[in-house]
Amino acid sequence: MSQTRILEPTPSAHPYPLLIKQLLLSGRRYEANREIVYRDQVRYDYNTLNERIARLANALKASGIGPGDVVAVMEWDSHRYLEAMFAIPMIGAIIHTINVRLSPDQITYTVNHAEDKLILVNDEFLPLLKGIHDQFTTVENYLLISDSDNPQVPADLPFVGEYEALLAAQSPDCDFPDFDENSVATTFYTTGTTGNPKGVYFTHRQLVLHTLVETAVMGALSSNPLMNSDDVYMPVTPMFHVHAWGVPYVATMMGVKQVYPGRYEPDLLVELQQREGVTYSHCVPAIIQMILGCARAQEVDFKGWKVLIGGSALNKGLALAAQDKGVQLSAAYGMSETCPLLCGAYVTEVMREELSDEAQVDYRIAAGTPVPLVQLQVVDAEGNAQPHDGVSVGEIVVRAPWLTQAYFKEPEKSEELWANGWLHTGDVATIDGLGVVKIRDRIKDVIKTGGEWVSSLELEGLMSLHPAISEVAVVGVPDPQWDERPFALVVVQPGEAVDATSVKEHLKRYVDEGRINKWAIPTQIAVVESIPKTSVGKLNKKQIRAEYADYLNGEGAFLSSV
Amino acid sequence: MSQTRILEPTPSAHPYPLLIKQLLLSGRRYEANREIVYRDQVRYDYNTLNERIARLANALKASGIGPGDVVAVMEWDSHRYLEAMFAIPMIGAIIHTINVRLSPDQITYTVNHAEDKLILVNDEFLPLLKGIHDQFTTVENYLLISDSDNPQVPADLPFVGEYEALLAAQSPDCDFPDFDENSVATTFYTTGTTGNPKGVYFTHRQLVLHTLVETAVMGALSSNPLMNSDDVYMPVTPMFHVHAWGVPYVATMMGVKQVYPGRYEPDLLVELQQREGVTYSHCVPAIIQMILGCARAQEVDFKGWKVLIGGSALNKGLALAAQDKGVQLSAAYGMSETCPLLCGAYVTEVMREELSDEAQVDYRIAAGTPVPLVQLQVVDAEGNAQPHDGVSVGEIVVRAPWLTQAYFKEPEKSEELWANGWLHTGDVATIDGLGVVKIRDRIKDVIKTGGEWVSSLELEGLMSLHPAISEVAVVGVPDPQWDERPFALVVVQPGEAVDATSVKEHLKRYVDEGRINKWAIPTQIAVVESIPKTSVGKLNKKQIRAEYADYLNGEGAFLSSV
Repeated sequence: MSQTRILEPTPSAHPYPLLIKQLLLSGRRYEANREIVYRDQVRYDYNTLNERIARLANALKASGIGPGDVVAVMEWDSHRYLEAMFAIPMIGAIIHTINVRLSPDQITYTVNHAEDKLILVNDEFLPLLKGIHDQFTTVENYLLISDSDNPQVPADLPFVGEYEALLAAQSPDCDFPDFDENSVATTFYTTGTTGNPKGVYFTHRQLVLHTLVETAVMGALSSNPLMNSDDVYMPVTPMFHVHAWGVPYVATMMGVKQVYPGRYEPDLLVELQQREGVTYSHCVPAIIQMILGCARAQEVDFKGWKVLIGGSALNKGLALAAQDKGVQLSAAYGMSETCPLLCGAYVTEVMREELSDEAQVDYRIAAGTPVPLVQLQVVDAEGNAQPHDGVSVGEIVVRAPWLTQAYFKEPEKSEELWANGWLHTGDVATIDGLGVVKIRDRIKDVIKTGGEWVSSLELEGLMSLHPAISEVAVVGVPDPQWDERPFALVVVQPGEAVDATSVKEHLKRYVDEGRINKWAIPTQIAVVESIPKTSVGKLNKKQIRAEYADYLNGEGAFLSSV
Repeated sequence: MSQTRILEPTPSAHPYPLLIKQLLLSGRRYEANREIVYRDQVRYDYNTLNERIARLANALKASGIGPGDVVAVMEWDSHRYLEAMFAIPMIGAIIHTINVRLSPDQITYTVNHAEDKLILVNDEFLPLLKGIHDQFTTVENYLLISDSDNPQVPADLPFVGEYEALLAAQSPDCDFPDFDENSVATTFYTTGTTGNPKGVYFTHRQLVLHTLVETAVMGALSSNPLMNSDDVYMPVTPMFHVHAWGVPYVATMMGVKQVYPGRYEPDLLVELQQREGVTYSHCVPAIIQMILGCARAQEVDFKGWKVLIGGSALNKGLALAAQDKGVQLSAAYGMSETCPLLCGAYVTEVMREELSDEAQVDYRIAAGTPVPLVQLQVVDAEGNAQPHDGVSVGEIVVRAPWLTQAYFKEPEKSEELWANGWLHTGDVATIDGLGVVKIRDRIKDVIKTGGEWVSSLELEGLMSLHPAISEVAVVGVPDPQWDERPFALVVVQPGEAVDATSVKEHLKRYVDEGRINKWAIPTQIAVVESIPKTSVGKLNKKQIRAEYADYLNGEGAFLSSV
């Protein structure tokens, strides 16, 4: 086969590697006077942002940080976090955004695994740090962050100083070098249900491309205008969580006013939204629920606030409740491994014209349509793409220019992630005739029975419609004949009773309607007082599977073979 | 110095080269039923667009075209041109967009220089082709494009067939390969005032990046919303002219309805704008003037039509006249060498709130603000960046990820273009305190006198305000003491007279106001009956400079040393 034509640039041509520093060029050019706001404490403009980023870079260099070094951050959402997201990678170092909600042991593991050299730490986390720092194997120094007027730099740990004092001592100019666009810029850890946290990482090139596509998706899709340059942005997804979904980079590139709320306090979030005129945020469903439910929220009108929802499925009840308060919710889909943007809700022009607002909500809460440059398939266990019929389930696999290229120092898990050259999301979904992706389950929770995949989430949803059932969890348990069979735990409504026959009759209706197949009806159901949950309130299916045998022999349980 | 961290991807990870084929993924996913319209002749949806691109790719392969081959197109703006802009590069070949307005000799030169192997040619250009094809050195075949119901494939040239017949014979599926993102995708020629046309070229990577940033700029800047996904797009800049400014790629990526007008006929353009609901176009000032002046335009209201203006300076009179007809004009700046996007007009939020609509027009007609990822400076002859004071003039030099990396097979001119690692635009400009770039002149027309740069355009503008002067041209002529001195040709208003003193007094006012310095007042002025013009009606400064000595001795001329 002949070759494509690749020409040598003329010797003086400037090679233009895609680097995070270039995202800083335009925001200040468009709106130099736009503000970056931190709570009710700090307020400055884009010129100052640029200067402070240069000062921070100079301070880091003076602290011995250079290209390839890993600098970790333990901080709530702040202007300082934004500065660090630029300054650290712009000197060729790597920002490790520590998830401060992990257990102390997990934080220790990630600090050592990432090979952190310096940690920027908010003084709120000093007690935590003091309990674990002697287990750190690579950390040489700390840098103190504080909201206090008179911050005290601890003497018993090797601190290079306090953030504001260090910045003040440095020049507001810094000549940021060019380097390979494939240099790692960011890293953070994702926790599964088993094993150690896994490190994902993203390069300068990947973050620039992610930023450009996210700008286009949030700004140029008429279906769902989310953030144009006059919007006012406040993240309500922690900045240590997948680059706050990449939006701080987008906002900075476009010169958007940005509001950083620090540690999330519902009343303060409402206060900031109102006072600063915030029009665009993003968060997980639990957070918007918390905000809408807080005392201050009952007194205000949120009209004009667009909130992108990710992380967990967005249900219609929440979307409608938010709408009543003036908040327009819409869903997007992505994960730590994917930078994160993969899909966003989209409503076609015809549907916008023909469907009621309420009917459109069904599309606004779906994972949605893959964004530009994302290739997405739903595949069966053999890797065959499933039809776009809204029914055939399979695992979502993707390709895009911004996916982690491995788990750091985990060759086997990396190859699992990228089996067959597609990134395996572990999410099970359908795609309908309009191309709309709907998440059905996590693949580890799907029940593989008799060659069919049964969604545990869907089955739980249908069982929960039984009038006597108040809570339900379904897992797959081993079966010699069918590989796995569904096993359900149910909590019964007070004063009610359930028996196998009534559950079977209840589910058979959905079999007849074609919503589930007959293999989905659980063979075994155990009635329990309560269902095991994780620390964040999700069903703990790992524990349920582990304790399956106990349930079978448990008191108050009944076995059925419906 | 230590190194940035570059990690090997896990072996199975998918490397994701940036390729034009990926721009095709999303449009159809968002709006499969959106239309591509060609005049009143063709109308199909995005699914069909995708199929036709695959069919064309298969037809090209069947015609012996493979990676690295150059396929030229001689065609007016059409759905077929759009298909070619995708299909040709997607098989690894290079699309050469021939400027059909060049002279036959120039076309021959570009065909041979680009090494065209196949030419897609609209039957309108067959007479032209028949006059020059025997001078072609690399062309092996032709492919006929026709609007006729019964196209006749000429027998006397090696035609592989007719476009629609060839597409019909092919499969609507094509497996487009991955290859190096630095492969050349497009090429075309730019003509200066001297020498042969020069070939510029752009890679897949460059076009993907240009598309993403252009999408963001046109869609997400609140100052100037130009094209969101629900807009309806019709180019009125020929597709052979710098990728129709890149907008067909943007429109296709976002699933925008597209209208292609064929050969430009003012009444038809108005008809299409009205009938198809076109909301976004782009063109040079002369074309919008032609459209607004045509008969059909007098009967309609263009309300909602946004037109981006580039190619030449947009003057305020035209912008206001267009506004009266409902057309919102705004300027952008770029050139053949730059893909083309460099700058776009931007009005800050404060100015939008505080200035009248008419005052804002001054900003909407300026070259504007550099777009994201573009680095731009205005430099003096030694390469020193000039201050942002709105007065200091210098040449615009740029860096961006989408600039031609050389002139094809022109090593010396390539090094001139990229001297000191910055692309030299040849445009002279100022940047004001708000960062707004205003083009002042072409560098070859600037008058370098006594170490100062005098803008010939500005001087012409000021002289034209003299009540007795109806037309004026200013060029620099050699001067032993000052390097150059301004020399002016003037045409006097009927019934009026000018003398040196009155011109001097007129200009001295602007010296006192600080708009020009005293060196700008021309030493020599010649009164003439008419001023030499180029074929497109621009002042022919090359000829004026060449004939300078004649003017000095010419009849009716007067010499002054004001």
